[in-house]
Amino acid sequence: MDMQLLTYWQQQFISYLTTHANSDDGAHDMGHFNRVWQNCRAINQTEGNKADDLVLLTAAYFHDLVSFPKNHPDRSCSSLLSADQTAVLLKEHFTGFPADKIAAVHHAIHAHSFSAGIPTETYEAQILQDADRMEALGAIGIARTFYTAGLMHSSMFNAEDPMGENRPLNDSRYALDHFTVKLLQLPALMNTAAGKQMARANADYLVQFREKMCREITGEW
Amino acid sequence: MDMQLLTYWQQQFISYLTTHANSDDGAHDMGHFNRVWQNCRAINQTEGNKADDLVLLTAAYFHDLVSFPKNHPDRSCSSLLSADQTAVLLKEHFTGFPADKIAAVHHAIHAHSFSAGIPTETYEAQILQDADRMEALGAIGIARTFYTAGLMHSSMFNAEDPMGENRPLNDSRYALDHFTVKLLQLPALMNTAAGKQMARANADYLVQFREKMCREITGEW
Repeated sequence: MDMQLLTYWQQQFISYLTTHANSDDGAHDMGHFNRVWQNCRAINQTEGNKADDLVLLTAAYFHDLVSFPKNHPDRSCSSLLSADQTAVLLKEHFTGFPADKIAAVHHAIHAHSFSAGIPTETYEAQILQDADRMEALGAIGIARTFYTAGLMHSSMFNAEDPMGENRPLNDSRYALDHFTVKLLQLPALMNTAAGKQMARANADYLVQFREKMCREITGEW
Repeated sequence: MDMQLLTYWQQQFISYLTTHANSDDGAHDMGHFNRVWQNCRAINQTEGNKADDLVLLTAAYFHDLVSFPKNHPDRSCSSLLSADQTAVLLKEHFTGFPADKIAAVHHAIHAHSFSAGIPTETYEAQILQDADRMEALGAIGIARTFYTAGLMHSSMFNAEDPMGENRPLNDSRYALDHFTVKLLQLPALMNTAAGKQMARANADYLVQFREKMCREITGEW
């Protein structure tokens, strides 16, 4: 893919999203879209550039076009609605966008989500899913987990039993439970070898953070 | 102080707060009050038990009785209002509470806050301030910083310049700026030797976390 053309489309998408989709959710802002695109490129390069960069770029910027909160009943429909709206948008607003790539963008966006539960059928979908999952791990993943708990007014952890050893886990109620319920499962769920390697290191960082937090909760500084 | 009597008052305070002051701010919940009390005891013991345990216990549980959000114009009055309301509460609701300790509880609560800006004049006030500041550092401090940013719908960081090298710092807008604006200054501001030592180690943890986050922002996993 011609780099100048890729930069042209990136600027078009950023300009559109800045004007039309400016939310006050700091876990799903332009910084998130930029980093997911950055992760997509890094994974695609490491994997031998098998995926189409323009499809990846487009899917990265529009994958959260519709993003219901974690505790919303229609949460599992977010990615399908995002895919549908992106396809319409590309046809109607971005008239120069290659029509033959729209189906691939639609599939990548629809399949990227954990809660949609459909299989990834293309390299682009696999890479987007891995790139987005990296945002749930490492220091950024820790920050996003607690930021989102603040948005939802839930608790940071269960102070009596932070690891959930003697109670049912509930990540809508306790942010720290989200580590076990979802985040620490991600390395095993990554599609690409590059993604898996990145995810393992950043999942280890979460485990170390949780150990430190549990020590602090019991008064061991 | 008799341990049984201390436990009696602790149960009374927890029971009162559970019924009357149940907020949905997970950074200022019963877990926070329990940990601040735990920190007070640890610091007091290390410092040779110079402070009155019942004053510390009472001040620890009621120090955030009034807690305006970080971006509220009356933020700097929170601790004085908490102190005033606690004094009234102790006289009117906890009739068996020793009247001669109320002034010391009032001062400790009023002086504990960063934004009140008044000097700590007693051991109890110094220890409560140190104990509360420990909650701003370490893994719990990281979680509370991003949780509070979520509550306020601000951004996690400035993605273009996360360290704020070429822009004015603004911790109402960017959670990560709060590290430099306030949190990393805390070790130097601690009153007790025990608090200072605990704070240094946990401030180092924040610095390491920030370094990891900045690497991730620039795509280095």
